[in-house]
This record gives sequence, C-alpha cells and structure tokens, in this order.
Amino acid sequence: MLELYHAEPGANSLRPLIVLKEKGIDFVSHYVNLLLFEQHAPEFVAINPNGQVPALVHDGEVITESAVIGEYLDDVFHDVSLRPHDNTQRARMRIWTKFCDEYFNGAVSMLGWHGMVRRIALNIDKDRLEAVLSRIPLKEQRDKWATIAGESFSEAELAESRRRIEVSVAKMEAILSRTEWLAGPTYSLADINTLGIAGYIPRMMPELMNDQATPGCMRWLTEINSRPGVQEALAMPNRLEETFRALGV
Amino acid sequence: MLELYHAEPGANSLRPLIVLKEKGIDFVSHYVNLLLFEQHAPEFVAINPNGQVPALVHDGEVITESAVIGEYLDDVFHDVSLRPHDNTQRARMRIWTKFCDEYFNGAVSMLGWHGMVRRIALNIDKDRLEAVLSRIPLKEQRDKWATIAGESFSEAELAESRRRIEVSVAKMEAILSRTEWLAGPTYSLADINTLGIAGYIPRMMPELMNDQATPGCMRWLTEINSRPGVQEALAMPNRLEETFRALGV
Repeated sequence: MLELYHAEPGANSLRPLIVLKEKGIDFVSHYVNLLLFEQHAPEFVAINPNGQVPALVHDGEVITESAVIGEYLDDVFHDVSLRPHDNTQRARMRIWTKFCDEYFNGAVSMLGWHGMVRRIALNIDKDRLEAVLSRIPLKEQRDKWATIAGESFSEAELAESRRRIEVSVAKMEAILSRTEWLAGPTYSLADINTLGIAGYIPRMMPELMNDQATPGCMRWLTEINSRPGVQEALAMPNRLEETFRALGV
Repeated sequence: MLELYHAEPGANSLRPLIVLKEKGIDFVSHYVNLLLFEQHAPEFVAINPNGQVPALVHDGEVITESAVIGEYLDDVFHDVSLRPHDNTQRARMRIWTKFCDEYFNGAVSMLGWHGMVRRIALNIDKDRLEAVLSRIPLKEQRDKWATIAGESFSEAELAESRRRIEVSVAKMEAILSRTEWLAGPTYSLADINTLGIAGYIPRMMPELMNDQATPGCMRWLTEINSRPGVQEALAMPNRLEETFRALGV
C-alpha cells in the first residue's frame, strides 16, 4: 500500500503529487493542514520525526524528503520514467534540483513565511503559540516560528532572499531559453521539483517573471501546467484560504 | 576521457576520488590549490562557473556537485555498484547525503574556515585580498571571505555550528549502532559522501566522537578507512601544509 502525507498542492508537497499522477499510481492521500500545525502532532511525528511533509509510506517503509521521494518512486515504478535516459541530462536534473533545494526554495519560502504564515503567528493566542512551538521537533523550525511571531526577518534578510530569487530566475531563464525542459529535451523530475516554487513567482514578483523579461520561463510554465498529470495534482485539496477564514486571520 | 578537478582528498573533493578508486576507473587528475585561489582562476571558472571543486569532465561534458558526480559515475560505470540494490536503502542513501549537504557539512565547514582558512585571509596583503575577492564568482563565497578577513563569524554562529555538528554526530551514531553502513547493510555513496567531513571530527572535536561516546561511528571509520579504494583516494596529493608553509602563515 502507498500512502502520501501532504499539504496543499504547492511547494514540496506538489512534487510527489505530480509524480504519482504522472505515473497513474493509486495512493491513499492524507491531507496535513500546516496552518493547524498537524505536521507537529504526535501521530505525524511518529511517521516523520522531523515533522515535515511530504512523507511517503510504502508497505510500511517511510520515505521523506520530496526530492528523494521522486527518485524513489521512479526507481520502484519505472514504466513511466521521469528521469532522462541520458546520463548527462540525468546529472543536470540532479544539479538543478539541488540548486532549488539549497538556494531557490529557501528564498521563496522566507517571503512566504513573512507574508503569509506570519498572519497566523501574529493572531494566534500567546498560550496556544507557546504550546505549538514547544512540540516542533526541529530547532530550525522553532526558531523560524519565533522569528515571524516577533519582529520577523530583517529588511536585509528579505532583500537577500529577493536577490536570490532574481539569481534563480535568471539561471532558470538561461536554461529554458536554450532547452525545452530544465534537464534538457526531456521532461523530468527537475521540472516537477521546480513548479511548486517557480509557479508562484509570476504573481509574487510579476516584475521578475513575465512574457517580456523571461519568455523561456513563461513558455515552460504554460507547457508544464498543460500536462494532465500536473493538472490532476494541482486539483488536489487546498484548504489554505478556507483555514485562514476559519481562523479569522 | 575522464578528468577530475579536485583539491586535497578531504571534504567534497574526497567523494569523487573515492568513487573513481573504488571502481578502478582511470582518470586525469587536476589538482586545484584552493589556498592559492586557483578555483577562481579564469581557466577553471570556464569549466565550473561557480568556481568550486570538484568538477568532472567526461568526454567534454562538465558535471559539478560532488553528490551528483557520485550518482553520475554510478550511472555510467555500473560494473561496481555503489548504490544499494534495495530501493528503500537507496532512498536512505539519498536522504543521508542530503542531510550532509544541507546541514552537517556547512557546520563543519564554518569551523574549518574560522580555524584554518582564516590564517590566509588575515595574512594576505590587502591589495592581493581585494584582487582575490573580486574574482570570486559566487556572492555567498565572496561574503564568506569578507567575513573571515574581518571579525570572522560571531560566537553565536560558531556555537550554532557546534550544536549542529553534535546533532549530526548523534544522528550518525543512531544509524551506525543499528546498521553496518549509513544506508543499511550495504556500503554506498552515503558512506563515501560522509567520510570527507566526518573523518575530521575525532581530531577536531574529540569529546564528541570517540570510542566511548560513539562506538558505532568509530567502528564505521575503521571499516571505511581500511578499504583499499578509500586508502588510494586518501593517498592523493595533499598540499595544504606545504602551501601554508610556503605562504608563511
């Protein structure tokens, strides 16, 4: 049996959702509501001690880390392959994914925490916030919550994240002005691993990603968003707005 | 033809050196002296625009990122496999490597920069330092040099790195007290990717990794260091001390 614990179809949760839909694999979906801190609940921490989604459970074995889950699903279910056959392109797929994980994603994530998750931190009652913080397993995550519940990130930190997003978009455009997909001529995990973050940029920073400035990125977004598997993944439950409303923040 | 640009056999350069030696693959070795800033020379930046070692050149194609080079070499030269056949163990190999790259290595690296690379930054003549800084391609690297040439990292930053190393060693011991290797019963890239950093700990922080506190890690170090391929890799040129002497710092 295959079970996926995931949040709404964005950021890292979108990755395994696309992989599963592209491959047409049946799975049991467990929606974890991050705004209600369900990722830190004892039942979920028993599955992933880091308290982070997504997490895949396959016949009792837990696989974490969205980039690793993608490679795992491609190792196990190889009828539809999502990794280029060519070894150099396969290496490019991994280099790009690593860049997303170590640079691009963190920068976008900081702006998202500052602009959106902070609404929760500022409106939640102090006792409840302390209770929430105390059960976050990773110190880095606890610190991030404490930061946005307080003064938030500094202007210098936010500016540095914006700069990193600019660098990332320029790199992405440089690739996509030369090749159809991020690892070369073949659609791959590199593309799947990028959509959940890059897909936000045209709305978040429209001056940075648009038809004039980055025609390659915009063409890529149209192509990837038109894939049936991607559309099925994007149609998975998204309770963010509903949760914000319910919380009244 | 296979060419490897690498520094001394430690940190990230050790990874592809071990992989190549384990597989018995002939290659042309290009030693890049990091203390003489050869990684920022135009000839090398033409190969890796990030100005970082290691870099592999295989029949004209450049592959960067030591973790990716390992997977690439295993994709291309699969007679001797360095990835577990079992898919769950293969996922564990990748999860552990990702943890090293995103957490463990950066913490050890900060202490290394503070304790060792800083000797260069403090002793080099100001004009030469400016010339050196100006040709570093990555802003993050330029900033790191500027930091160690100035006040260096703060006590809080150094303490946080020490804490992260403690967390990393505890995680490593938890795995190695249960299984022979980091991905399970099979020696793999997970082990190879860890030696270049973990191998320093018993000397750098002897109170943290020793026979009493971490018998699993110490047993693992003995086992991996006794492998002929690892010994051949560790015997590759190391000009650190000689360069420090020549520079008189």
